[in-house]
Amino acid sequence: MSQGFMTNVAVHKGLDNIFIKHTALSNIEGDKGRLYYLGYPIEELAEYSTYEEVCFLLLNRRLPTKSELQDFARKLRKERNVPENVLKIIKELPRDAPMVSVLRASLDILSLYDGDAERNDVQAWMNVAVRIISKIATLVAAVYRLKKGLEPVDPNPSLSHSANFLYMSTGRLPTPLESKVMDVGFILHAEHELPASSTAALVVASTLSDLYSAISAGVSALKGPLHGGANERALEMLLEIGSPEKAEDYVDQQLSAGKKIMGFGHRVYKTFDPRAVIFKRYLELLSDAKKDYRFLHLANKLEEAVVRALGSKSVFPNIDLYSGPVFHLLGLEKEIFTPMFAAARSVGWIAHVLEYWEDNRLIRPRAVYVGPAPRRYVSLNERL
Amino acid sequence: MSQGFMTNVAVHKGLDNIFIKHTALSNIEGDKGRLYYLGYPIEELAEYSTYEEVCFLLLNRRLPTKSELQDFARKLRKERNVPENVLKIIKELPRDAPMVSVLRASLDILSLYDGDAERNDVQAWMNVAVRIISKIATLVAAVYRLKKGLEPVDPNPSLSHSANFLYMSTGRLPTPLESKVMDVGFILHAEHELPASSTAALVVASTLSDLYSAISAGVSALKGPLHGGANERALEMLLEIGSPEKAEDYVDQQLSAGKKIMGFGHRVYKTFDPRAVIFKRYLELLSDAKKDYRFLHLANKLEEAVVRALGSKSVFPNIDLYSGPVFHLLGLEKEIFTPMFAAARSVGWIAHVLEYWEDNRLIRPRAVYVGPAPRRYVSLNERL
Repeated sequence: MSQGFMTNVAVHKGLDNIFIKHTALSNIEGDKGRLYYLGYPIEELAEYSTYEEVCFLLLNRRLPTKSELQDFARKLRKERNVPENVLKIIKELPRDAPMVSVLRASLDILSLYDGDAERNDVQAWMNVAVRIISKIATLVAAVYRLKKGLEPVDPNPSLSHSANFLYMSTGRLPTPLESKVMDVGFILHAEHELPASSTAALVVASTLSDLYSAISAGVSALKGPLHGGANERALEMLLEIGSPEKAEDYVDQQLSAGKKIMGFGHRVYKTFDPRAVIFKRYLELLSDAKKDYRFLHLANKLEEAVVRALGSKSVFPNIDLYSGPVFHLLGLEKEIFTPMFAAARSVGWIAHVLEYWEDNRLIRPRAVYVGPAPRRYVSLNERL
Repeated sequence: MSQGFMTNVAVHKGLDNIFIKHTALSNIEGDKGRLYYLGYPIEELAEYSTYEEVCFLLLNRRLPTKSELQDFARKLRKERNVPENVLKIIKELPRDAPMVSVLRASLDILSLYDGDAERNDVQAWMNVAVRIISKIATLVAAVYRLKKGLEPVDPNPSLSHSANFLYMSTGRLPTPLESKVMDVGFILHAEHELPASSTAALVVASTLSDLYSAISAGVSALKGPLHGGANERALEMLLEIGSPEKAEDYVDQQLSAGKKIMGFGHRVYKTFDPRAVIFKRYLELLSDAKKDYRFLHLANKLEEAVVRALGSKSVFPNIDLYSGPVFHLLGLEKEIFTPMFAAARSVGWIAHVLEYWEDNRLIRPRAVYVGPAPRRYVSLNERL
């Protein structure tokens, strides 16, 4: 059957260890469990920086001065409102559909109202970048509220990007600790080199399609359970296990059934995901503040059991094990996890696209043909 | 500045000649100018087959029996209508936005109404496949009519898929020749291995996101001027040149200015694109029928001049040179070209996704880090 003339060609399924661009944005040291944005350790950015500053850092590839940061934060704040027409249409969309799908539709509708979307110059790209990063948070919160049967909440200009997002989602003003934790969540999800979502954005952008189209593709990829859908599933797993004393049995059962355990293992990290370590610390702080230790103790027990069983095979906690419990304690339900991830990552997608466009090349891989050899068409009447 | 520890790693920008999957769907012999779907030469499929049959062929990887084809065509026909709610929302969208962007938004809205969209079994995928292939044609025609300030036209169940598409777009019943030419246009655009749009669909699908998400990403990529946008630009070029006797001067001017000429050259074909040869023949037939030879003579002159100048550098007509004039003579305006391409290619995107899902692997490439070495965060007050 097969023509076979190309069967000696290597097929890079999954593109494992295929490098498709240079980047100055982030560096993952998978063996050491280290992550840097522009050379700055993720631990220091989480501790001392803000999401607004990290966005500036990723878009401009350097930290801002004080006045640059004020100016950038002001631009982001000014862009928080979504056009009335867009909100009106979003309210008509079905609410039982997956939230990520509604978010993508909403973002696509929003793009139709942006007069800069089709312009091809750096200034327009920066305008659109700020607009997307700011407005996608408002869209996520609005879609979330609508799904819960609640009215969207208007942005609050006195709050930071992340605190305002939490406010628009829950409808109540966050405490300082909650604001800080939400901001850390946005910082930790802002950028992570080339997962499938960033790759999808790049493939689209390489055709010189517009920024909205690239981000829309990123959202599409993030939706998959092998990518952004994973944190929602990790929380479901924790809720299913229910209590710390059941953690060890659960791990045994899963492993003997040959099943994987959500929140563990990563294509690049072969030790602790540094973002998991940071989220774990904030889970401790939040648990103290809320006097609610259920998830903390359960996740800790799970970590112990999995690392004991699989640590030698480089399976360690990834970001999803501790992020779900953190978001849960912030009062957010699991339906919002992936859309919120998209809101935080929008800047990473945009930064990779802008970096790629500096020396663009259309992405056009090949497939190895393994089908039938050339043959004559058989007319319908002659077919068996 | 650079850490430099990975600078000896090869970067496959554009993924040129990187093979990312096996496929039985199509085979491009770039040096010989040959294209096959499942081993059947594209020339024979264009001559003897129909778009419905080609869809069956790509989805099932074999030609149908007579009753299978009848059954499949009936399913496609039954799915032509778009839910009233969706049409109502589409009518509210801005009409001055690019048609491809409106199409993507429309498709994303449609997905929210499909109860099978989130199911993960082969039967659901086939239902969704038929639904997307059928309804996307209706969406394209509706968005096109609305852009022109006209009411959408209801599908006509007595017509074939392509003839009905032409009818819904122009509002008049096509002649037998027009129906055949439209069908050939759909067949020639149905599948073409792994251009950026199919690659974007695969990247999204590899996360186990849903079919609509994958197709939405395909539409996003097709929008780019380096991909689906090219046929629109080729027609613009022909209109700009205006008459056959100006063709040679135009080619000289472009080449001496170091500019490229739309409708020529291809990443994979190093000789005549076989689809261009077929479209050229149908352009001749249509020109005869319409007694309008402007585009035919102009495109021929252009082909002569470019092949004379650049044939030795493997630059030959691609599909876009002759497809634009053909669609123009069918009464379609250039705004519909890329969306129509998306409608025809939807089956190719879906077929590649279904083939990939048989042995899925998350697509997760890497980037070579060339940014700053690890450094300490500097607080805002200490910054210059």
